[in-house]
Amino acid sequence: MYTLAELRYFIKQAVKDLDVSGEPKELYQPIQYVFQTGGKRLRPVLTLMACNLFNDKVEQAIMPALGLEIFHNFTLLHDDIMDGASLRRNQATVHEKWDQNIAILSGDVMAIMAYEYITNCPGDVLPEVIRIFNTTARSVCEGQQYDMNFEKKLDVSAEDYLEMIKKKTSVLLAGCLQIGAVIGGAAKADAAQLYDLGLNLGMAFQLQDDMLDSFGDPELFGKEIGGDIKSNKKTWLLIKALEIANPGEREEIVNFLINKNRDDKGKVEKILSLYNKLGIKELVENLVHSYFNKARMNINNVKVPDERKSVLRELTNSLTNREK
Amino acid sequence: MYTLAELRYFIKQAVKDLDVSGEPKELYQPIQYVFQTGGKRLRPVLTLMACNLFNDKVEQAIMPALGLEIFHNFTLLHDDIMDGASLRRNQATVHEKWDQNIAILSGDVMAIMAYEYITNCPGDVLPEVIRIFNTTARSVCEGQQYDMNFEKKLDVSAEDYLEMIKKKTSVLLAGCLQIGAVIGGAAKADAAQLYDLGLNLGMAFQLQDDMLDSFGDPELFGKEIGGDIKSNKKTWLLIKALEIANPGEREEIVNFLINKNRDDKGKVEKILSLYNKLGIKELVENLVHSYFNKARMNINNVKVPDERKSVLRELTNSLTNREK
Repeated sequence: MYTLAELRYFIKQAVKDLDVSGEPKELYQPIQYVFQTGGKRLRPVLTLMACNLFNDKVEQAIMPALGLEIFHNFTLLHDDIMDGASLRRNQATVHEKWDQNIAILSGDVMAIMAYEYITNCPGDVLPEVIRIFNTTARSVCEGQQYDMNFEKKLDVSAEDYLEMIKKKTSVLLAGCLQIGAVIGGAAKADAAQLYDLGLNLGMAFQLQDDMLDSFGDPELFGKEIGGDIKSNKKTWLLIKALEIANPGEREEIVNFLINKNRDDKGKVEKILSLYNKLGIKELVENLVHSYFNKARMNINNVKVPDERKSVLRELTNSLTNREK
Repeated sequence: MYTLAELRYFIKQAVKDLDVSGEPKELYQPIQYVFQTGGKRLRPVLTLMACNLFNDKVEQAIMPALGLEIFHNFTLLHDDIMDGASLRRNQATVHEKWDQNIAILSGDVMAIMAYEYITNCPGDVLPEVIRIFNTTARSVCEGQQYDMNFEKKLDVSAEDYLEMIKKKTSVLLAGCLQIGAVIGGAAKADAAQLYDLGLNLGMAFQLQDDMLDSFGDPELFGKEIGGDIKSNKKTWLLIKALEIANPGEREEIVNFLINKNRDDKGKVEKILSLYNKLGIKELVENLVHSYFNKARMNINNVKVPDERKSVLRELTNSLTNREK
């Protein structure tokens, strides 16, 4: 069994050794750039962790884990075009640094590379790995489309929002864990628990993101508080506030959403004070905790000796307490 | 053994039965639209033909064949964004009818669907089918990037051009035939012959396209003659003309390429008369014939009874004599 630090090191080395060179250079340089700009590499680490839960031969999961990281970065690359984002990890996005056509096409190559790496797994689990990944990949695209649809809608329900982040974010974490488990030789029921674990961690993680943006400690958070409020992002907090506000309060929020030119500073303060009045922080905290609790149950339910679960528990605890 | 008409019918029905519905509708309606706008379905028919050369159970190649057609249409969808094309098969392109974001994302879903269908093949050949398809898919993207690069370059050699169309067009036909052969149970050497057959047919086909655009019979061609010349497209004809022209003639061509506002009608006539003077038609005809000859050799080299080859020969002959 490996420690979390060891698994992280394996992935760090594998990403470092990743050969994404090729011709024409216009197509491959952006891919090299994407991997040089860094990232937490959470997804491939999850894959190794899930494999290691059942099996000490984690090396057989390294290539698929890399493939899942490549896929994640492919979705970010195309999402950045669609969102018109100019920065990613504090660096210029590919469509800004090169151009949009190159961003579309190098993204397409990354999607293909993702399949090359993911299908580089033991033959006996290949069909199942492909099945999980295909479903996962499609879901991520559907989530991104719902996200874009929601930007143009005022009447998004909290339930719709949870379904959207499930598809856009959680399903990929779920797929990473399930694929790792399958490669590690997990029984079907255990692999399904790992999938659910990924869903629950993903939901908790995304809702934490929403929460920290409004209620994080400015010193620890690393970014300015209220960025989501400024940009009118329809987070769970905003949607829930709209749901439980009285008509007068709702009108006030809607006016902020419609009138984009209203003073930002006053807006953040106003909305935050409304959130406080409505108890939004407690509501989202409760929701985050409920997902983490479900995640802990998923870990408990996996049928391997308890000592093998320490790394998954360590990661879950570190996510629970994150401040940024 | 099936006739060409029967194989075409199988594909036509399979495309008709193709279920590309799903939610959110913004993502799946464009995919339905793409398949409603038609197409020759050459690629999936090639896959069935190659399978049928070795095996009467062509049904096992239907799903992969559909996947290859989905992939082809995915590349067209993204290429149309990159080329800023407003029409495809005489209908509005997806990014024109919907918007660019939807075109990017529904294209991404099509790429994933392509893998879903292609990997729906017998388990014993799955790794080989994936390997061929990954290589093929990457090559198509590289070809598209070379094509975009060449638009901005004046000094493209005929050799560079052939390499570009090989990657952008021929490799996919080659992959379709090789995948069909592998599913049909072909020996390695025979599957390789089918791959080469696809390369040679693809080269011949693309060069015929270039030739017909300048030298086709206007009545049979269906489009106006000289479209490529008008749009300054760097076809093999233009590149070869630049290569063998004397300095004065070369200057004349380059002036047309640089000065985009020069009268179109005079330009087409001028360039065509230069092509005639330089014997470009004979040169491209010879090249097309040499590729068809190689294709016929590939068919001869396959180690199956001669009567099984009739469909491939029929298709090759029909392509040889095409006027549009």
